[in-house]
Amino acid sequence: MTCLDKSFFESLPKVPRLNLINSCMGYKSANLIGSISSEGIPNVAVFSSITHLGSDPALLGFILRPPTVPRHTYSNIKEAKFFSVNAITESFMSEAHQTSANYSEEVSEFEATGIEAEWKSGIEVPFVKDSPVQLLCKYLNEYIIQENGTLHVIASIEKIFVNEELLNDDYWIQLDKGNVVTINGLDGYAKTTLLSRLPYARV
Amino acid sequence: MTCLDKSFFESLPKVPRLNLINSCMGYKSANLIGSISSEGIPNVAVFSSITHLGSDPALLGFILRPPTVPRHTYSNIKEAKFFSVNAITESFMSEAHQTSANYSEEVSEFEATGIEAEWKSGIEVPFVKDSPVQLLCKYLNEYIIQENGTLHVIASIEKIFVNEELLNDDYWIQLDKGNVVTINGLDGYAKTTLLSRLPYARV
Repeated sequence: MTCLDKSFFESLPKVPRLNLINSCMGYKSANLIGSISSEGIPNVAVFSSITHLGSDPALLGFILRPPTVPRHTYSNIKEAKFFSVNAITESFMSEAHQTSANYSEEVSEFEATGIEAEWKSGIEVPFVKDSPVQLLCKYLNEYIIQENGTLHVIASIEKIFVNEELLNDDYWIQLDKGNVVTINGLDGYAKTTLLSRLPYARV
Repeated sequence: MTCLDKSFFESLPKVPRLNLINSCMGYKSANLIGSISSEGIPNVAVFSSITHLGSDPALLGFILRPPTVPRHTYSNIKEAKFFSVNAITESFMSEAHQTSANYSEEVSEFEATGIEAEWKSGIEVPFVKDSPVQLLCKYLNEYIIQENGTLHVIASIEKIFVNEELLNDDYWIQLDKGNVVTINGLDGYAKTTLLSRLPYARV
């Protein structure tokens, strides 16, 4: 085992430091957040920090970098209150990654990257057409993480759209059946294969 | 696509609701947190919510359920300030899952589950011997999520121990080389295979 001390990784140049610190705590979820601006411009952006917060009520959270530069997803969510979360699959992971480029506010990342938007009846925000798990979420709150100025955004899950083939009888969603990917670090995308579902652990 | 509304999933019995809401936002990291009580009893517990918060300074966060019943990991971390985060691999995922059983405070989950502890020179908290990525972390702060009473714990990364075979020249850790698993829902464990590392996205 190699031991890397804090004083060592704090002295690394930016890119290797980002690589190391982003990859050392395991796999991350791979989702596209769909949103819409008050001017009606749809936006789609890759997020690897969307995390389960609780099941009753159904809540998720995600991390946004400090809002010192314009963050279109954030301003859209604050205005419209609703947004979509869409699982990324192997078939559009390159296009999903490309949404992290710094497009200007007037550009729809759907058009720029070729990801196809899906509009659902009665819902204002765009979804990702080819995604097998799509959530409609509602902004609830945000917490400023004082330690680095990031925002922890809290949202409720309002609707779940799921491809029937992934949905088990006990309502567990088997992600590998939909070729949903997972993220390793900043730029590594991995496919997965279910090993097993383990029984509820008892003493 | 099946559409499941909030009113539907709020009416589901507990287990299917947990299955659905825990699996709908994608893959989760699979880690064991190692800690020690003020009486010197080591503890190890599985966590699927450990998330990257920032690289400079190197920070992570994780979610703890409301502290209405005793949480040994939490009380240990608050007392000792330090804890370890250890990537779970295919070879000990069953033992790792078993740490979620409700052992009493006097029991060391290392002994109860057969996970081998590793003690490092000059460090008070236990690590998991067979884990290829081990972090020494320091408790910094916590935020109460008012929406459901969970705690978001913030910690700094002080040391990274990593198997050389996983560590790339650019300091990216390739997790599949160490058979690190990822979690799908509450009880699904999946192995992964790297598809590709995608280039930095530019407009």
